[in-house]
Amino acid sequence: MSAPTVQTLEIVAGGITTPRGFRAAGIHAGIKAKAGALDLALIVSDRPATAAAVFTTNRAVAAPVVVSRDHLARSGGIARAVVVNSGCANACTGDAGFKDAVEMATATAALVGCPADQVLVASTGVIGVALKMDHLLAGLPNAMAALGADNGPLAAQAIMTTDPFPKEAAARVTIGGHDITVGGMAKGSGMIEPMMATMLGFVTTDAAVAPALLQRALREVVDDTFNAITVDGECSTNDSVMILANGASGVTVDERHYAAFVDALRVVCLRLALGIVRGGEGATKLVTVTVTGAATAAEGRKAAKAIANSPLVKTAIHGGDPNWGRLIAVAGRAGVEFNLSRARVTIGPIVLFNDGRPHDEAAPEAANYLKNDDISVGVDLGVGSAASTVWTCDLSAEYVRINAEYRT
Amino acid sequence: MSAPTVQTLEIVAGGITTPRGFRAAGIHAGIKAKAGALDLALIVSDRPATAAAVFTTNRAVAAPVVVSRDHLARSGGIARAVVVNSGCANACTGDAGFKDAVEMATATAALVGCPADQVLVASTGVIGVALKMDHLLAGLPNAMAALGADNGPLAAQAIMTTDPFPKEAAARVTIGGHDITVGGMAKGSGMIEPMMATMLGFVTTDAAVAPALLQRALREVVDDTFNAITVDGECSTNDSVMILANGASGVTVDERHYAAFVDALRVVCLRLALGIVRGGEGATKLVTVTVTGAATAAEGRKAAKAIANSPLVKTAIHGGDPNWGRLIAVAGRAGVEFNLSRARVTIGPIVLFNDGRPHDEAAPEAANYLKNDDISVGVDLGVGSAASTVWTCDLSAEYVRINAEYRT
Repeated sequence: MSAPTVQTLEIVAGGITTPRGFRAAGIHAGIKAKAGALDLALIVSDRPATAAAVFTTNRAVAAPVVVSRDHLARSGGIARAVVVNSGCANACTGDAGFKDAVEMATATAALVGCPADQVLVASTGVIGVALKMDHLLAGLPNAMAALGADNGPLAAQAIMTTDPFPKEAAARVTIGGHDITVGGMAKGSGMIEPMMATMLGFVTTDAAVAPALLQRALREVVDDTFNAITVDGECSTNDSVMILANGASGVTVDERHYAAFVDALRVVCLRLALGIVRGGEGATKLVTVTVTGAATAAEGRKAAKAIANSPLVKTAIHGGDPNWGRLIAVAGRAGVEFNLSRARVTIGPIVLFNDGRPHDEAAPEAANYLKNDDISVGVDLGVGSAASTVWTCDLSAEYVRINAEYRT
Repeated sequence: MSAPTVQTLEIVAGGITTPRGFRAAGIHAGIKAKAGALDLALIVSDRPATAAAVFTTNRAVAAPVVVSRDHLARSGGIARAVVVNSGCANACTGDAGFKDAVEMATATAALVGCPADQVLVASTGVIGVALKMDHLLAGLPNAMAALGADNGPLAAQAIMTTDPFPKEAAARVTIGGHDITVGGMAKGSGMIEPMMATMLGFVTTDAAVAPALLQRALREVVDDTFNAITVDGECSTNDSVMILANGASGVTVDERHYAAFVDALRVVCLRLALGIVRGGEGATKLVTVTVTGAATAAEGRKAAKAIANSPLVKTAIHGGDPNWGRLIAVAGRAGVEFNLSRARVTIGPIVLFNDGRPHDEAAPEAANYLKNDDISVGVDLGVGSAASTVWTCDLSAEYVRINAEYRT
């Protein structure tokens, strides 16, 4: 992370309702079968906000992603509300699913009192099953009635599927004597009951930010946060990160304050992203993978992702085995420039391979280090000077159990 | 697999010593710690043979791969012997490891009575540990003394590491009234004690085949067999497939008999490759993944590999869950052209998704089908007419245990 450009960047307790002018709700609408389980979240800004989003690159894109992308284009990057359900991904549901996603936005817009294209929608849960629209439509007025400026935590719960805990974060930054706040929530745990996982992130801010600048900031930050984590290398049909900027702070972020705003946004998104990894299915360790000495930043990222997704590396870390040979072998097969005779492997601060020679005598020290819950591994590719960091979790038998035993 | 071009292609019991003019040995030299464990294999042709090989694409390439590649180039594609040890990969061992691999070949050549560059070498086992050269050099004369025309099975055992069973195959084909035989052995099980896995394959034939044609045949067949399997998406520092053709049958394979020879070679390599998948670490099922409707064969292969390496797909199959949504989602993220509204997903003969619509009502039938040990899944990308098939195994908690618990 780059150094903050202002001294007053402050991480605060909170989430999506911490910025001024946002209310939220999280209720049980009956989309999840379990009685009382929260499954419908609503975020409403008290005034039109600018909006931006980053969506899944999966070509089997789900209906709510199609609708939200369309609404952002039609509204010119303006939104009043975001409505999210868990328990059903509304993916692979054909034309009927598309109509359901449109109706979800339209019904919300009628309640909020805004054009339909100023509502963004997201869904997470089962693929290939129709949304229970009767439950959803009956739940929306209840969600409206339940809106509150302290209800960020309930909304964060309502978007969870197999997540072991909710993910919220907030940060405050002072710009020219005034402060702006950025808050967010996310869900995602690896794979989701019973089908594909989804990563969803929602961020609010009371800064005023023009749509194009907001999109640029979100894209820049997502690349280093949500796009730099991996639980199992899978990419869902529904992945979405959305941001609303309502200007309620009275502070306008333009090119001059851009860096400070991005710092706050980055802090919030990174905390949410790391929360997703910590809560990864079966995860027992948070693993920071840093690749240095790459020919380009893209090659560094490619190698770091290959390491972070390697079942060999992830099982070794799970078992506390300082198996540096696996790190080298994955770097060697990652499809990037790699120079074995100049490569270096570290586990935490311990060098295990350097200049073409193993230092296996350090293995016991590295094994001891691997007992920690938060660990780091580093590979220098021995080629150039570019670097990349990604975060992942270990691979446990519990992961297999969670993903193998549904329906059986 | 293409249809055989001759009626007389016959799969026979046997391995590397089934073709005429080849002897082999498998002995305990003491490279593996376990008393009596076979760890040194030797294959010797009774006359100079043409030779070809396909090696790992890993950039952290092991010393024996460097030496074998160099010997093939120096000898002009001629070899008399192949010497293989298990228990130590001689990888990431620097200059000393390179000297050891050269000495392994030189010492073998002295015993066989041929130039050093007519000996190919291979190693599999621990990365980053030096070969026990005293044990290896003391073992070589014993291996020479033990050479026999019926000892293919012992050699197949001597190259095993965590493999649950040896892999051997042979086929006979008649060309112009004369028969030629192709035999082979392989090892590879996923990951290897205690570091990276290695896949090794050795094929012999008593056909006479010019080096360039032999290399062409091997490359063609390896792409559809050894390169079409995956246990966990990892590629080792030592992966090698080598073939020796000694002409002892008196039959010369030229362009005219090429197709018949390739058919026999393909049968042998496919059986060996499927043996590796069946013996994959923790594997309980052999999974055939067929992708159709791809824009190009390369895109079909890319999508099939993505599916075959998906932890979501592999855990679902392990659990007997007909989770077609995971197959779609992986196809969608595979980085290939994909048309959701024309895509189709099948599990065995059962259609679960077609023309943009789920057929979840067939899920119980598919769940029943998934109880079989050999299963197939199919995804039509809905774009073009190209296809690709790859083979993999399921992902079990036992895989995690095997790879997590070394050293702990």
